[in-house]
Amino acid sequence: MATKNGGFVALLLLLSFLLSSPLPARCDAPLPVNVWPKPTSMSWAEPHMAVRVSSSFHVVAPSGNAHLLSAARRYAALLLAERYRPLVTPAVNVTAGGAGAGAAGRGAELGYLTLAVSDLHAPLQHGVDESYALEILPAGAAATVTAATAWGAMRGLETFSQLAWWCGRERAVLVAAGVRVEDRPLYPHRGLMLDTGRTYFPVADILRTIDAMAANKMNVFHWHITDSQSFPLELPSEPALAEKGSYGDGMRYTVDDLVSCAGEFWLPDASDWPSRLAAEPGAGQLNPLEPKTYQVMSNVINDVTSLFPDGFYHAGGDEVTPGCWNADPSIQRYLARGGTLSRLLEKFVGAAHPLIVSRNRTAVYWEDVLLDQAVNVTASAIPPETTILQTWNNGGNNTRLIVRAGYRAIVSSASFYYLDCGHGDFAGNDSAYDDPRSDYGTSGGSWCGPYKTWQRVYDYDVAGGLTAEEARLVVGGEVAMWTEQVDAAVLDGRVWPRASAMAEALWSGNRDATGRKRYAEATDRLTDWRHRMVGRGVRAEPIQPLWCRNRPGMCNLVR
Amino acid sequence: MATKNGGFVALLLLLSFLLSSPLPARCDAPLPVNVWPKPTSMSWAEPHMAVRVSSSFHVVAPSGNAHLLSAARRYAALLLAERYRPLVTPAVNVTAGGAGAGAAGRGAELGYLTLAVSDLHAPLQHGVDESYALEILPAGAAATVTAATAWGAMRGLETFSQLAWWCGRERAVLVAAGVRVEDRPLYPHRGLMLDTGRTYFPVADILRTIDAMAANKMNVFHWHITDSQSFPLELPSEPALAEKGSYGDGMRYTVDDLVSCAGEFWLPDASDWPSRLAAEPGAGQLNPLEPKTYQVMSNVINDVTSLFPDGFYHAGGDEVTPGCWNADPSIQRYLARGGTLSRLLEKFVGAAHPLIVSRNRTAVYWEDVLLDQAVNVTASAIPPETTILQTWNNGGNNTRLIVRAGYRAIVSSASFYYLDCGHGDFAGNDSAYDDPRSDYGTSGGSWCGPYKTWQRVYDYDVAGGLTAEEARLVVGGEVAMWTEQVDAAVLDGRVWPRASAMAEALWSGNRDATGRKRYAEATDRLTDWRHRMVGRGVRAEPIQPLWCRNRPGMCNLVR
Repeated sequence: MATKNGGFVALLLLLSFLLSSPLPARCDAPLPVNVWPKPTSMSWAEPHMAVRVSSSFHVVAPSGNAHLLSAARRYAALLLAERYRPLVTPAVNVTAGGAGAGAAGRGAELGYLTLAVSDLHAPLQHGVDESYALEILPAGAAATVTAATAWGAMRGLETFSQLAWWCGRERAVLVAAGVRVEDRPLYPHRGLMLDTGRTYFPVADILRTIDAMAANKMNVFHWHITDSQSFPLELPSEPALAEKGSYGDGMRYTVDDLVSCAGEFWLPDASDWPSRLAAEPGAGQLNPLEPKTYQVMSNVINDVTSLFPDGFYHAGGDEVTPGCWNADPSIQRYLARGGTLSRLLEKFVGAAHPLIVSRNRTAVYWEDVLLDQAVNVTASAIPPETTILQTWNNGGNNTRLIVRAGYRAIVSSASFYYLDCGHGDFAGNDSAYDDPRSDYGTSGGSWCGPYKTWQRVYDYDVAGGLTAEEARLVVGGEVAMWTEQVDAAVLDGRVWPRASAMAEALWSGNRDATGRKRYAEATDRLTDWRHRMVGRGVRAEPIQPLWCRNRPGMCNLVR
Repeated sequence: MATKNGGFVALLLLLSFLLSSPLPARCDAPLPVNVWPKPTSMSWAEPHMAVRVSSSFHVVAPSGNAHLLSAARRYAALLLAERYRPLVTPAVNVTAGGAGAGAAGRGAELGYLTLAVSDLHAPLQHGVDESYALEILPAGAAATVTAATAWGAMRGLETFSQLAWWCGRERAVLVAAGVRVEDRPLYPHRGLMLDTGRTYFPVADILRTIDAMAANKMNVFHWHITDSQSFPLELPSEPALAEKGSYGDGMRYTVDDLVSCAGEFWLPDASDWPSRLAAEPGAGQLNPLEPKTYQVMSNVINDVTSLFPDGFYHAGGDEVTPGCWNADPSIQRYLARGGTLSRLLEKFVGAAHPLIVSRNRTAVYWEDVLLDQAVNVTASAIPPETTILQTWNNGGNNTRLIVRAGYRAIVSSASFYYLDCGHGDFAGNDSAYDDPRSDYGTSGGSWCGPYKTWQRVYDYDVAGGLTAEEARLVVGGEVAMWTEQVDAAVLDGRVWPRASAMAEALWSGNRDATGRKRYAEATDRLTDWRHRMVGRGVRAEPIQPLWCRNRPGMCNLVR
C-alpha cells in the first residue's frame, strides 16, 4: 500500500485474491482429516487447505426422492450445528496457499453442496449400489457428491459431514478443500442385531442407535424383536401375543396352546446340561404338531411382512432344545411312532419357508437349522436360492460349511461379533461366584467370554480361510447385541465404538494398501471418531486415555 | 348407617376409624420392602400397612448441624419428588387392618419425620458411629430416626426414603408403616476409588457418583486424583503441575526435573517385560535423589491437606518400576555406590511419611510399599500406628500378610474389586487380537480379567481366612474404578450396581441369619435397587432381564 496508483491496484489485486482464496487450514484441523469408516480412497491436496462453510449453507438435491431431500436438509443442518471440536490440535503448521497466507480476511465460503444421482429411484434393498464420489475443489468453489443411487449419495453426505470441524479462532465451521473421495463398500450386508425380546428398549433409543449406524455407514438393522422372555410387537391378527407376552403396556412396539414346556423351570438338573429345557432361563418352544401353531405363524408372517418392506425375513431357528420337545407328551408319542426331532423341525420350517417366499422375501435362519448336530433340516426345506444362513458358532469353520453347502452367509461368529460376551452370566443362585481364589484366566461366567475388544472385532476377517469362490457367498456380517444384561441405560457404551470397528472392516476392510492389518493405524482414528459420536449424542465407550491421543504411538504395545 | 342415633354414632365411629387408619398396603407395594444395603435388622408388622405421605411432609431436625439440616431438606424433597414405581406389582393381596379394610377414604397421613441425635457435633471421620434406629408407628402417627451422630441420622434418612413408593391408584406417595429398623455397618471403611488421572471426569459426574455412594451407605470416596497421564489438580504452591500436567484448561479441578524416565516409551522390548519402564503406557517416576522432589512433595502435601480435611492421606506407592529407576544415570551411580532400590524408595517414603503425620493425617499406601518383592520399605518408615495399607494383589493372602505385620488393611483385591477388569487392554498395535481362533477361556487382553460380576463382588469376604484377631485390623474395602477405558459417557454402568454389591457386603454382610451366603436372595433386591437408582438418575447396568423379576426363582441356575 505504499505508492498511490500502483499501490492501489496492488491492493485491489491483493484483496481480490484474499476474497477468492480459501483459508489455510491453520485452525484445529484434524490431520489427516478423519472419516470413519476409512474411505476406499481419499486424497487431500497439499498444502492442506480448508474453506469456511457459509451460514446459509445448503445441500442441493434433485427432486423426486423424498428420502434424499430429507437427508439433504438433515446434513445441511448438521454441518452448521455440530461444531465438532477435534481432540488434537495439529502438531504441524499447515502451510497456507498463495498470497493469502496468514491473512485474517474473510476468504471464500462454501455456500452449497450439490448431489448428482444417476438412478434416483433405486429401492433400498440388499445389494443396492452404495458407492459415491465426493469432490471439494481446492478453492472451495464447489462441492459435489456423485452417486449411482440416493443411498450412495447419503453415504457421501456422511463423509462430507466428517470433513468439517469447528474453528474456535475463526468462530466458523471449516471444511477441508482440495479433497477427492471415491468410496464403496466391500460387503453389502453390514449390520447390528438388537435383541428387544430379553429387554425392552424405548423407540427413542432404537432410533438413536439407527442414526449412529447410518453415521458408521452400516446398512442393516437386524431387529430381534421377540424371544422367549417377551413378545413386544403388536400384531393386528394376533393381539394376544403382545397383550400377554409384552413386559407391559409401556413396553410394546405398536403397529401388533401352542408351546412345549411353557413356563417350566429351564434347568431341572444343573449337573445334567443335556436335559435342559432351554438354553437359558425362559423355557418354551413352539410345538410343530399343534395345528394352531401354523395359524399363528401364518398370521405373524403376513402381518410382519406388511409392516416391514425389507427383502429379508429372519425366521430364527437357533437353539432348538431337544429336552423341551422331549418333555412334551404329544411329541413323545410322535417320536415313539418313528418320528425324529429333525423331521419335527423340518415340518415347521417346511411350512414357514413357503409362506415367507410367497410374500416375496428371502428367509434368513440361524446356522443351526443346517448345522446343529441334534436337530437340523434338509436342504429341500431351505433352498439356497431363497435362504441365507447367519453364523454364530465355531468361527470361520461354520462359515465355510455354509458356503460350501451353497448358501449365502451373514457372519456373526460369537467369539468375535457377540457384543454381550464377557459380563458374566445372568442366572441367579450360582455358587460358582462364591470362590475366594483368583479368577484370572477363567471365563468369569460368560459362555462366550471374554469381552470382545474393538481390536478383536476389527481384525476379524468374515471370509477368512475361504477360497475366492467361497467368499463370494459371504454377504457380510452383523455384530449382535443380546440384551439379557443390557438396557437403555448402558446400550450406547456396549455397542459403540465396537460396532464401528466392524463397520469399517466391512466397508473398506481392515488392511492397508500393502495388505497388512491396519489396526495400529486405526486406533487414533477410532478415538477421534468415538469422540465425534459422543458429541453427536452417542455415549460410546472410550478406547484409550486421552493421554494417548496426544502422543501418537506412545501407548502401543510395540512401538 | 341403618338406625338413626345408634347408626349415626356407628357412622361417626366408622369415619373416625377411617380417618386414623393407615391405608392397607394394597397398591404397588414392594413386598418385602426393599432397602439396599439390607439393614442389620428390620421388621414390618403384619398385616403390612402403609400410610400416605402428606404433601407438606417435612423432616424435623435439631438445629446446630448445618449438614444435618441440609440432609433433612434434601430427603423431604426426595420423598415427595421421587415417585418411585416399583418393578413388580405384589402377587399377594395385602390384608387391610381394622374396619378400614378396602375403604377408599383418605386415611391418616404422615406429616413429618423427627430426627433425634445424641452427639450432634461428632465429626465425620473414620470410625464415626453410623448406627441408627428408624421407627414408623403402625398407625403412621409418628416416624422417628434415632442416632448417635448426624451421620447415622443421614443413614436413617436414606433408609426411610427407600421405604416410600408412588401409588398410582391413590396418586400419592406411600410409606411402609409399622416398621422398625436397627442398623449399623460391619466395616467402618466402605469406599469407591475413582481414577481421574487417566481420564478427566467433569465435577458433575463426580458429584453424581458421590450421591449414589451415599444412597448405598458407602462412606469413602478415594479420589485417585493424579497419575502418570495427567495431573488435573490446581495447587496454589505448584501451579505448573496442573498447567503442564492436566489434559487441558477445561480438565482441571481447581482449588492447584523431578522425574526418572520421563517421556520415554514405556516398553522398549515387548518380549522383555522385566525391562519395562512403566506398568503401562505413561512412563515416569519421581526421582528420590533429586532435592527438588522433596520441595514439591512438601508443597503438595501441605496444599492437599489444606484443601481436604479428611483424616486419611493416600500417598500411593504402587507399581514402582525398577526399570525406570535403573535407566536413570543418577540412580545408576547411586546403585553403583552400594545403594538399593528399596533404600531409594525408603528415602522417599521416609520423608513423606513424617510430613503427612505432621499434618495430623494417617497415611495410606498401596500394599506394594511393604509387600513388593523387588522394592519395599522397612516398618520403621511406615509405623503401623500412622499407616494403613491398601491391598490389590493376591486376594486374601496379602490381606493376611498385612494384618499379621500389624497394619490395618483396606481391601481392594483386584480379582474381586477392580471394576475395570475384563474389557481388554488399551495398548495399541497389539497383534494378539488378530487371531482367527476362538478366544474362549482366555483373558481377552485384560491383565485382571475376567469382568467381575456383581455376584463375585458380593460374595467376597474381605476378612476371609483370617482369625478373629487378625480380622480386627481389616477396616473395610474399596471397589476401584481405574479409568484407562472409562469416562463420563459410561461411568455409571461400570460402577453400578457392582459397587452396591460391595456396599451391602461391607454394611450388613453377605450372609443370612444362618450364616450362609445370601447372594440368591439378594438378586431380586439388587434388581429393585438398581431400578430405583436409575430413577434417581444413575445409569446403572441391569443384572437380569425384567422377565426374571416377574418370576422369582425362574432365572436361577439351581432352583
